[in-house]
Amino acid sequence: MELMPLTMNHKIKSLSLAYDPAQGLRLLDQTLLPSQVSWVPISSPEHMIEAIQSLKVRGAPLIGISASLFLGHYSLSHTPSQTYQVYEDLKKARPTAVNLANNLNSCWQNYLTHNNDPQFLLQKAIELFYQDQELCFAMAKQGVSLLNSNESVLTYCNTGSLATAGIGTALGVIKQGFEQGLIKHVYASETRPLGQGARLTAYELSQLKIPHHVICDNMAATLMAEQLVTKIFVGADRITKKGEVANKIGTLNLAILAAHFKIPFYVVAPSTTFDFETSDDQKMVIEQRNQSEVLGIWNNSISTALNPAFDITPPTLITGIVTENLISTYPFWA
Amino acid sequence: MELMPLTMNHKIKSLSLAYDPAQGLRLLDQTLLPSQVSWVPISSPEHMIEAIQSLKVRGAPLIGISASLFLGHYSLSHTPSQTYQVYEDLKKARPTAVNLANNLNSCWQNYLTHNNDPQFLLQKAIELFYQDQELCFAMAKQGVSLLNSNESVLTYCNTGSLATAGIGTALGVIKQGFEQGLIKHVYASETRPLGQGARLTAYELSQLKIPHHVICDNMAATLMAEQLVTKIFVGADRITKKGEVANKIGTLNLAILAAHFKIPFYVVAPSTTFDFETSDDQKMVIEQRNQSEVLGIWNNSISTALNPAFDITPPTLITGIVTENLISTYPFWA
Repeated sequence: MELMPLTMNHKIKSLSLAYDPAQGLRLLDQTLLPSQVSWVPISSPEHMIEAIQSLKVRGAPLIGISASLFLGHYSLSHTPSQTYQVYEDLKKARPTAVNLANNLNSCWQNYLTHNNDPQFLLQKAIELFYQDQELCFAMAKQGVSLLNSNESVLTYCNTGSLATAGIGTALGVIKQGFEQGLIKHVYASETRPLGQGARLTAYELSQLKIPHHVICDNMAATLMAEQLVTKIFVGADRITKKGEVANKIGTLNLAILAAHFKIPFYVVAPSTTFDFETSDDQKMVIEQRNQSEVLGIWNNSISTALNPAFDITPPTLITGIVTENLISTYPFWA
Repeated sequence: MELMPLTMNHKIKSLSLAYDPAQGLRLLDQTLLPSQVSWVPISSPEHMIEAIQSLKVRGAPLIGISASLFLGHYSLSHTPSQTYQVYEDLKKARPTAVNLANNLNSCWQNYLTHNNDPQFLLQKAIELFYQDQELCFAMAKQGVSLLNSNESVLTYCNTGSLATAGIGTALGVIKQGFEQGLIKHVYASETRPLGQGARLTAYELSQLKIPHHVICDNMAATLMAEQLVTKIFVGADRITKKGEVANKIGTLNLAILAAHFKIPFYVVAPSTTFDFETSDDQKMVIEQRNQSEVLGIWNNSISTALNPAFDITPPTLITGIVTENLISTYPFWA
């Protein structure tokens, strides 16, 4: 992809993110959806990290792009050593998704190779935004080629315009598939504990007027038993060189059900999600989040809870991985 | 089992239910647990039906016993034709569990064969209460025989003293297994949408000081993948003559995971849960509950949701069915 021309007043805007050099970065607070649409200006590195950790902004691609735009904007008015410190801090804001570190690294690299000129850091971040939009369209095009007519699709977590800069990964395939008349119905699995399916995917599907039902995560098996699901599309936070897919907790569950009922199970992710650097022996760091996310809604103050944010689905359970370039089927790149 | 001697001032009390002829039936409002322990007097047939439908009282055995005690008490001060109408209305309060109709039928039968003497209706209801306590102990004894040492058990929904008159079905096995030092840890799966695991099983486990974690239903697969679950015990609302088990939505999901990971999956239920009358061709009526139970916590007023209360697990996925008399393994009674 070619570099965009440098421009100090370039403005960008998506369903979930807005940036211009005068106002800085603003994010749609995703914790308040679907009942409230509220934009938050991100004024400091601490604020950016808090927005990531509290899931005001979430979705592996969107986190990476947001943090990069923030860093780019920050670099305009700070020294290289201050910027370096923020770059290091942002990389650690969430451990599992690979995009955050990858995007920040590539922005930082562009800064270094241009004599610490902050415009080049910002420019790279803006470029990543547009690159992600194009990636989404390219993935959707690949994914739609898998669809027959009258598909009734199950999806998990949120992988749309609230997770990326564009139409999304798995949800991007669904949006384009619906637009082309191939998908007639969508099941959005709630995605406990934080309800990204019941809140965010439901919000996007409603905006797009796509017929859908929200289901509890434990209902997927019975839908499949009743042959109501023809295909499953999910996203990914990180894909290792063995073809293991780290994604929102509950993805492994769905993949096992899909294998049991012989329903095609596709992972949709840009090639930037691939992590070929982690060795086969290294275990991925799975973020454990606060147990109040699990227990809070039940007013349960007497128990302890587990709250791993992600799980790992082995390649044997995945029908195919859809990227911007191709659809890779098991055993993938072995 | 022998008939108890008739007594007009017989009082009964369990963790979830209290009855004496002066005060009538009182139920622990299970919708308020674990944060609030509140007893509700049941003053009218409408109130009894509301308590069942709103899940103030739930658990197949406990519903049957509560409704029977109510009917017995009601018959003391009403005509046979009034009592008959309430008997018919109560049977329809929830459609899936077989205990409700079975218990009411057996009370009604005892009433009819004793010239509509209400004491015999009430006596049968009281008898069912004690019978259920004994059943629970007998099931637990069978179930404990399946345990090795250091078991780490996963359970679903609530099947304890808040679901039965006694120590419970699946949770009864767990209680006795813990007491005998065979179980070291319990995972209580939250059981969306109403959180019977996260609220009620957690409450019972806390009361019994059994070490436990609450997990979201979508986390079970990853626990199993990490070999943290050695056995699974669940209850049942109805078991057909083909060996199909209707139980809380999400049970089928767990059974598929258990088969995938080769973890023993046991159903614990009294023989009264068996429904040998429904023919092979008849489909069980699966109760669809209000979608607000799914969408409410997310403040989602823009989507529709599915909310089947139960699912059906085929016998091929069940390692064994534990009853008060024996442990039956697949292909069960074929």
